[in-house]
Amino acid sequence: MQITARQIADLLNGTVTGNEDVIVTGASKIEEGLPGTISFLANPKYAEYIYSTLASVVLVDKSFHSDNNINATLIFVENVYAALAVLMEKFNSGITLDQGIAASAIVHSSAILGQGVSIDDHVIIKPNVKIGNNTRIFGQVFIGDNVTIGDNVTIYPGVKVYHNCIIGNNCVIHSNTVIGSDGFGFAKDEDGQYKKIPQTGNVVLEDNVEIGSNTVIDRASLGSTIIKKGVKLDNLIQIAHNVTVGANTAIAAQSGVAGSTRIGEQCLIGGQVGIVGHIQIANGTMIQAQSGIPSSVKGPNARLYGSPAIDYQQYLKAYAIFRRLPEMANQLRTIELTLKKLEKNNL
Amino acid sequence: MQITARQIADLLNGTVTGNEDVIVTGASKIEEGLPGTISFLANPKYAEYIYSTLASVVLVDKSFHSDNNINATLIFVENVYAALAVLMEKFNSGITLDQGIAASAIVHSSAILGQGVSIDDHVIIKPNVKIGNNTRIFGQVFIGDNVTIGDNVTIYPGVKVYHNCIIGNNCVIHSNTVIGSDGFGFAKDEDGQYKKIPQTGNVVLEDNVEIGSNTVIDRASLGSTIIKKGVKLDNLIQIAHNVTVGANTAIAAQSGVAGSTRIGEQCLIGGQVGIVGHIQIANGTMIQAQSGIPSSVKGPNARLYGSPAIDYQQYLKAYAIFRRLPEMANQLRTIELTLKKLEKNNL
Amino acid sequence: MQITARQIADLLNGTVTGNEDVIVTGASKIEEGLPGTISFLANPKYAEYIYSTLASVVLVDKSFHSDNNINATLIFVENVYAALAVLMEKFNSGITLDQGIAASAIVHSSAILGQGVSIDDHVIIKPNVKIGNNTRIFGQVFIGDNVTIGDNVTIYPGVKVYHNCIIGNNCVIHSNTVIGSDGFGFAKDEDGQYKKIPQTGNVVLEDNVEIGSNTVIDRASLGSTIIKKGVKLDNLIQIAHNVTVGANTAIAAQSGVAGSTRIGEQCLIGGQVGIVGHIQIANGTMIQAQSGIPSSVKGPNARLYGSPAIDYQQYLKAYAIFRRLPEMANQLRTIELTLKKLEKNNL
Repeated sequence: MQITARQIADLLNGTVTGNEDVIVTGASKIEEGLPGTISFLANPKYAEYIYSTLASVVLVDKSFHSDNNINATLIFVENVYAALAVLMEKFNSGITLDQGIAASAIVHSSAILGQGVSIDDHVIIKPNVKIGNNTRIFGQVFIGDNVTIGDNVTIYPGVKVYHNCIIGNNCVIHSNTVIGSDGFGFAKDEDGQYKKIPQTGNVVLEDNVEIGSNTVIDRASLGSTIIKKGVKLDNLIQIAHNVTVGANTAIAAQSGVAGSTRIGEQCLIGGQVGIVGHIQIANGTMIQAQSGIPSSVKGPNARLYGSPAIDYQQYLKAYAIFRRLPEMANQLRTIELTLKKLEKNNL
Repeated sequence: MQITARQIADLLNGTVTGNEDVIVTGASKIEEGLPGTISFLANPKYAEYIYSTLASVVLVDKSFHSDNNINATLIFVENVYAALAVLMEKFNSGITLDQGIAASAIVHSSAILGQGVSIDDHVIIKPNVKIGNNTRIFGQVFIGDNVTIGDNVTIYPGVKVYHNCIIGNNCVIHSNTVIGSDGFGFAKDEDGQYKKIPQTGNVVLEDNVEIGSNTVIDRASLGSTIIKKGVKLDNLIQIAHNVTVGANTAIAAQSGVAGSTRIGEQCLIGGQVGIVGHIQIANGTMIQAQSGIPSSVKGPNARLYGSPAIDYQQYLKAYAIFRRLPEMANQLRTIELTLKKLEKNNL
Repeated sequence: MQITARQIADLLNGTVTGNEDVIVTGASKIEEGLPGTISFLANPKYAEYIYSTLASVVLVDKSFHSDNNINATLIFVENVYAALAVLMEKFNSGITLDQGIAASAIVHSSAILGQGVSIDDHVIIKPNVKIGNNTRIFGQVFIGDNVTIGDNVTIYPGVKVYHNCIIGNNCVIHSNTVIGSDGFGFAKDEDGQYKKIPQTGNVVLEDNVEIGSNTVIDRASLGSTIIKKGVKLDNLIQIAHNVTVGANTAIAAQSGVAGSTRIGEQCLIGGQVGIVGHIQIANGTMIQAQSGIPSSVKGPNARLYGSPAIDYQQYLKAYAIFRRLPEMANQLRTIELTLKKLEKNNL
């Protein structure tokens, strides 16, 4: 899609300063802005970037004022986030789904659907499902018995939601992700064979949760596995049974959280991180990619690295020495020889 | 689901001692028992936990006898595991699937289905498939040509089973898992381009195997990739072509096993473990999460940690020193200075 | 499938030397050849293996000549790779898909399909999709709006391709892989809540790309995530938005590449590797399994290991010392004691 600053301003009821003919073809973050993209400034923390961003156009609040020179074309709007949402719709126009229920979808007669719902082909909706207004469910999705889904939810093709799970408003779930499969719970019998522990709980996604593709969130053995409001999970993530992920925490791809662990709010967890079961992670914890967290993180805003993880700076310093361990081993040998000589002389 | 100890006892033809009005809403392991849950004691190894468990109700064998005080309500049954299976059915009642073949399922006329089979909507069953008695296949599953599936199997929505694979009795496969896709086998030609090696084998799951969601088990290039009886695989696991996983081994989420490796029986493999190809892992090996196994493990019951993995205790001790390497480097510098001084004095 | 060397030769219009009654049941690499398999020699680099391979039969070029003794039956053919392709078809005969469009498939009227296309049951083809000749799309696949797919492509059951993506000729995509889901792009607002950055780009797979099962390739935020010709990706891999993977690079299972990173050509990347975002990896880089790549790799053909990764040999040497760090700590203590004694004597 190609659109000029002028056209965007018209779409958003905004006003333009700068070159209104500049063309944008996509969006970018203000701190990583690229020519030909539109960015936005809403969080004052990022205000400094408006002077250096390479983005061609930046959406700003109508109250925004600057004495310094800004290269980008600015579009002043009433509410930056609301404007952004309108723009997103526009940019996402490549994907279409008609309202209503496709003929090949199997929707049980006991299901209750809100206004403006879209159910694509080959979707299965089991008994007693409730779906809110304006929710879109793409092809080949499976919604199990008694599932409740909120308003304005988007569920992409192939997602499977097991029975009794609850999905809040404004959630987005990408393709082939699985919500509510059985937790990994077995007990060994006297013959060394595993017997299954029934997994009788469910999964609860609160509002504004977004989940990537091919991620798995297991149902609780009892109670709920809970993903709190505003959490963002990337692709291929494992969330085991009875885990809680705190509000506005983001977890990057291929990380895993073992059973019954409680992760705090506003945490930033890198890719391929592993977190053991039955621990607590304090609010604001930052975990470097590939780290392994072996025990509870008690103080907030810690930064961790390593497997098992330690303080981020401490890990980097230790690792710097690790790299030259062979040299250090040689030093030790030399010292021991020198010592022997000295001791001999000393006798 | 809410159910009283009395109701459970009636369901299982058991007898109650203790408060028969206590309500349970789910199940838990005896060693992790929670109030409001039912647990069970079948393996004598766990007998001690019956005195400390917080579980409200415990299923025990009718021969169970204790002189000590037990807080939990006990239900005495003829066979604990059989009773547990009945209870599981009860707790899992949130998920329904009618017997018979849904109208939208595509079942090839050459397929042979046993008694009491359930085939859900939008399932595809290809030519020459054989399915045993009481097997349930949920929505949007794909069963390729010539696949054989045993009795009492449950295949959850979206699972794909490629042609010629064999699935034993009582297996459970969770959503969007893939069984029998091509192994990763290529040979480079003189231009540096990969040519595919045909993957002509299959996957065999023996009886009582349970597999989580979004796991992949590749077909053998020749012969079979084999998952032996009683194996439990968690979510997002990679099993490469020609691997064998021994009986009653459990592997946690996001672990991967490279091609042609043979894993023994009764192994416990943590999450995010990597095991290289073409090696053997002895029976009873325990591997700590995130470890990398670079070579065969010959003696049974080893406990391993690290990447590459070494003895578990050795790794922990080495890592304890790793954490204070910067300090050790300082010690070394001090020693060298002292030595220089001493040598000078010594001249 | 069982087939004799004679039958293969007839199939391929080849000539046989050696035992033409030997039976093969599958294929293997020449360097790993197994009895009862057919292998091939096309790349002269592997010529030496023809004398030691245990493969029963080897396909060779009609110009191949040797004075030494070869145990295997040889089949001389006009073009080894072309012959291999014919054989592959033969060995893969367990999987069938009729040409044409299955009755239960939903193909939008605006889609343009080539000659000899096969569309299996419960496939969804959205508006404005273009599909080339002889392409096969198995059951329950979803092809989003405006997707373009080349000739001779195979897409296995359950794959989801989002709108606007482009798939080249001769590509193979295994089950439940997702192409083109949204990149993980969010910006925090002043309340600590994430706002989504529109992901407006697409994914481009060039020709001859093969992708395993349950892998995810996210669409670019802007522009394209690009998988160049001849790339081979294993199962459960994460390719983030705006990544480029260079021609003929192979990546093993469960590895992840973060956003905007550019990987060179002919790289070999092991399993469970993590690569951070916004870096470049030079051509021919080899990365050991489980490594973490924290920064650009500038020189070609480096071999790396560790997290963060360093030179492969350096890592192994450092790790060898790491294993005996407790012993080294003891050495240090002894040295310090000896020094103290010496200093005392020296006074």
